[in-house]
Amino acid sequence: MASFLQDNQDRFLTELVDWLRIPSVSADPKFHNDILKAAEYLKARLEEVGLENVELCQTAGNPIVYGEKIVDPSLPTVLVYGHYDVQPADPLELWTSGPFEPVIKDEKIYARGACDDKGQVYMHVKAFEVMMQHGGLPCNVKVMVEGEEEIGSNNLGIFVRENKEKLKADVILISDTGMIANDTPSIEVGLRGLSYHEVEVTGPNRDLHSGLYGGAVANPINVLCKMIASLHDENNHITIPGFYDKVDVLSDADRAELNRVPHSDEEFKQSIGLPATYGEEGYTTVERIGIRPTLDVNGIWGGYTGEGAKTVIASKAFAKISMRLVPHQTSEEITALFQQHFASIAPAGVTVQVRPHHGGEPVVTPTDSVAYQAAAKAIETTYGKKPVPTRGGGSIPIVAMFKSELGIDTVLLGFGLDSDAIHSPNEHFGVFNFLKGIETIPLFYQNYAQDFNK
Amino acid sequence: MASFLQDNQDRFLTELVDWLRIPSVSADPKFHNDILKAAEYLKARLEEVGLENVELCQTAGNPIVYGEKIVDPSLPTVLVYGHYDVQPADPLELWTSGPFEPVIKDEKIYARGACDDKGQVYMHVKAFEVMMQHGGLPCNVKVMVEGEEEIGSNNLGIFVRENKEKLKADVILISDTGMIANDTPSIEVGLRGLSYHEVEVTGPNRDLHSGLYGGAVANPINVLCKMIASLHDENNHITIPGFYDKVDVLSDADRAELNRVPHSDEEFKQSIGLPATYGEEGYTTVERIGIRPTLDVNGIWGGYTGEGAKTVIASKAFAKISMRLVPHQTSEEITALFQQHFASIAPAGVTVQVRPHHGGEPVVTPTDSVAYQAAAKAIETTYGKKPVPTRGGGSIPIVAMFKSELGIDTVLLGFGLDSDAIHSPNEHFGVFNFLKGIETIPLFYQNYAQDFNK
Repeated sequence: MASFLQDNQDRFLTELVDWLRIPSVSADPKFHNDILKAAEYLKARLEEVGLENVELCQTAGNPIVYGEKIVDPSLPTVLVYGHYDVQPADPLELWTSGPFEPVIKDEKIYARGACDDKGQVYMHVKAFEVMMQHGGLPCNVKVMVEGEEEIGSNNLGIFVRENKEKLKADVILISDTGMIANDTPSIEVGLRGLSYHEVEVTGPNRDLHSGLYGGAVANPINVLCKMIASLHDENNHITIPGFYDKVDVLSDADRAELNRVPHSDEEFKQSIGLPATYGEEGYTTVERIGIRPTLDVNGIWGGYTGEGAKTVIASKAFAKISMRLVPHQTSEEITALFQQHFASIAPAGVTVQVRPHHGGEPVVTPTDSVAYQAAAKAIETTYGKKPVPTRGGGSIPIVAMFKSELGIDTVLLGFGLDSDAIHSPNEHFGVFNFLKGIETIPLFYQNYAQDFNK
Repeated sequence: MASFLQDNQDRFLTELVDWLRIPSVSADPKFHNDILKAAEYLKARLEEVGLENVELCQTAGNPIVYGEKIVDPSLPTVLVYGHYDVQPADPLELWTSGPFEPVIKDEKIYARGACDDKGQVYMHVKAFEVMMQHGGLPCNVKVMVEGEEEIGSNNLGIFVRENKEKLKADVILISDTGMIANDTPSIEVGLRGLSYHEVEVTGPNRDLHSGLYGGAVANPINVLCKMIASLHDENNHITIPGFYDKVDVLSDADRAELNRVPHSDEEFKQSIGLPATYGEEGYTTVERIGIRPTLDVNGIWGGYTGEGAKTVIASKAFAKISMRLVPHQTSEEITALFQQHFASIAPAGVTVQVRPHHGGEPVVTPTDSVAYQAAAKAIETTYGKKPVPTRGGGSIPIVAMFKSELGIDTVLLGFGLDSDAIHSPNEHFGVFNFLKGIETIPLFYQNYAQDFNK
């Protein structure tokens, strides 16, 4: 198997690069044809490696690529989930090579989607090929790769509810997360949820001259800044009433355990060029990311943003504001709390609209399951070290949905690194990580099939 | 004279429209050729009406159009100032007709620059024609029209300092302001100064995923909002230390006098679609605009501003922030105070840059001068009402500069209205106002020449 990997790694990379070349950005309708091309490309590759009943399942939005290989109904079934859509690539000017002109440089594949999630999905495709060429799959597999993860997976929930029989499985396997480092393998066991909003503050009915009106009208940008500023207090606690009501208070022992994860604030600061860490008073960096909810402005705009000086008071100001949620907070509750609170803090003289985008639920996955142990053992074999269980700050909303709709737990077998710059310019994925994934995944199947009925 | 005006008004409008068609936006280098075209157009029109020594005076930036007509050196001299450059036209999508495709609709000329300041400059050009056709100019005139007013008049000061003899005059006449209403004529006697800055807040060295990093790094947009919010206290006083130190405290009598200006908060709110006025506690709307300094954000941007949701923590956030100044504040002092204060309130974990744009000094012009009285009398004749002296909120920085460099006072003979939407989409200028200007200006010259040596 090792030599097969060795002999074929260039081809595996070339196939991935061809897929990455398709700009499957789901947030922007102008890429709709590329979304379809990316789905078709994946369908063809899944058929090539021997999956059956491969199809594009139509939804109200982008199609879901589905395929399966039922070896023996008495064997356990693994449902692999991933997504073929990618984040928008802007700001384009900060990319050192085109986001959709993949290049391999310094042992890394640079492209939008290289890690999140096309690169990680493609490890599974090639892992199937490896297994097929070496005695076949040790258990049944179903694959479901969607095209709307980056815009909230709105149609996936409907698809899952309507196809419970088709999707029946014993465990869900997802590679859409990362590890601490290549010499410190880890498995994420906790994910934060998400509540995402676009807010619009309207003052005067048109842009005004700041000299003729300045001082006597509510300036929507100043007001928006004031409203956003008030969402955190001086200790960086979030001030939305009821926001923390359902947040788990971890015991000192649990917090100590959590902080045992290898982490250096010095390295953390250096990796992102910051002179100081920042965040909620009373918590460590690991806790701030792993177990505490947050509120961040993801974008803001209003008024004159061109060259030079324009003395205008804008009619409107906008922001995109999202909150990361932790277990027991629900996106529905937090979305309602945010909407209510944000409208309530608007001063007289402006009107406020809050438009919720997609949400997602926080989740903690079990570590005592056969599947988790199978993954941990596989990683220990290929990395030579037992993986550390971690609680990451990201959100994969569908993990909670799979649990509630299908009753199935997930294992987050991710091979990315925090430094991969996903969602940022110059996203990349290590060639080492890509190949390590293809090497590790077949071992997961072996371990899982072996231990399932023990 | 009345019939001449009547007979030629269509031609006057056509000539103005032709000039407005040239997009002389000074803030954006891509319009540089149009700047030159607009200057040449004006030069030709000034020659046509009989001015002499008309020339484009080169500067380090855009040329200054100069012309003169010395009737008799023993007569007084009026120096007319204006500008042929215009504000940027964006947001373009809010214009109901093209900003540089002028249309006359409902007795108004719609175009960028229709009022500010091409339309008002062109009243003077046509007033010269009227006087030339009716016995000639009653005194000497010099005309100086610059092309950098909207970007800070940086080269005008140099030009003025180097041409003191050429520009020698007894009064400066400027039409770049407005009146209260067409049935409530007024003359501005006070203008606010300006201090304008672009600020940049930098957090992490690249855009980050808000899930993987959110809560543990300073988000530059949140930080910028907090910094901006802190610039006003709960009474909407500006919090920059020393900001109010030199601001005049008006006596109760002066304040009462000032508030005698016709003004209705109800109409004010209605005209700009606001449910409530807003501003510094303890002051009326007229005071907030006329005698109090202000701080407004004119633009803000950062992070993801496209369609849909992107969960990113931006590396940088930006804002354009300007302050309107009142007498005894200087733009140099306030600029230094702002820079120092804004840098000082940045939290650990971000770096801040403050880039000052142009500034301008506040000014109060005399009402007991021959020139002011000549203007007031002219308006009384054409409008049938004595004009009210007002203190406007806008800034014409060069008024203070003319006083300090040339020792000459200014009369602000403006014919615009606040509702003309200057600096906004759908800028316009009333045909009534344009023609009223052409009718009033010759009377000013008559009155001024008559009363000068009394």
